Amino acid sequence: MSAPLLVRFVGGSAGRWRVERMQAVAGDPLPSVTHVAVVEGAEPAPPSEGVWSLRGVTSHERYTERSERERLVAVQPALGRPEATRAALIPIRKSASWWELTQDERRAIFEERSQHIAKGMGALPAVARRLHHARDLGEPFDFLTWFEYAPADEAAFDDLVAALRSTEEWSYVEREIDIRLTR
Amino acid sequence: MSAPLLVRFVGGSAGRWRVERMQAVAGDPLPSVTHVAVVEGAEPAPPSEGVWSLRGVTSHERYTERSERERLVAVQPALGRPEATRAALIPIRKSASWWELTQDERRAIFEERSQHIAKGMGALPAVARRLHHARDLGEPFDFLTWFEYAPADEAAFDDLVAALRSTEEWSYVEREIDIRLTR
Repeated sequence: MSAPLLVRFVGGSAGRWRVERMQAVAGDPLPSVTHVAVVEGAEPAPPSEGVWSLRGVTSHERYTERSERERLVAVQPALGRPEATRAALIPIRKSASWWELTQDERRAIFEERSQHIAKGMGALPAVARRLHHARDLGEPFDFLTWFEYAPADEAAFDDLVAALRSTEEWSYVEREIDIRLTR
Repeated sequence: MSAPLLVRFVGGSAGRWRVERMQAVAGDPLPSVTHVAVVEGAEPAPPSEGVWSLRGVTSHERYTERSERERLVAVQPALGRPEATRAALIPIRKSASWWELTQDERRAIFEERSQHIAKGMGALPAVARRLHHARDLGEPFDFLTWFEYAPADEAAFDDLVAALRSTEEWSYVEREIDIRLTR
């Protein structure tokens, strides 16, 4: 766990990742763009301004317990694998009623009742993932999750996303955009 | 629980609160100032630039459980009581080894072994408190805690601060400034 890393996802007409499709799963859509640039830390922004820019920070884990982390660390892949030419950026915002819950209540919904970590484990080691926290930055979304996988693993990723959307945890998601990308 | 509120604590030669003393309890000090202005959300900054400016956001609770919150809410006072003419601003940064712990490990140190919430409860209803999270904003401190109390309650507040500093949790604090203020 290093210091929080600020990451900007800049949607526009330039960037390493080409947009295959954008879908507003819940709430307002984002304006359509053809490319997304991922800008980490002090890296310069892309020359074009972009149509939208979403900011988030990698940070310490909020729910994962020691035994869960050890199982995750043993199998989770890094970002940037050469074969992982598909990506998904999924910004979500949860409702005020989620944020009014206490830590024990949120944890119980997140894992004991929705199996968020356990479901995610089912997509490992195929799908690499990085979570970015955005709520405390005053952004329109609470979380920006970035996934990378090989084309052959897209069905497994789709199954994971569908399984999560059917959980009690997801009943608190009031805005969600599913952006699929290729490079 | 409303949306996160961005708060800036601006140390300089102007502001509602006059500095009585500043003490570097651990790590590097902050430059001495005579006043602190507390600027909430979109409020305009004070006309003078200030010598330093620390930013944090109020946010959801990270450790408090339902039963603890209910006991806190029943007795904790609001900021801005007319008789609370003393304040303390205590910025702290925790070590990398704290942030490498998992949620269950941090909670166990925070409450089961250090009784952070229980100790704080002992200073209620005398001491009002507001916690601001700063780590994910890229600030030099992880937390900025603001306290308000009447002059007669200063000894109780000093006892609370001393009790917290003797805990296992505080062994992870690598920088702490204690700024006492009056208005």
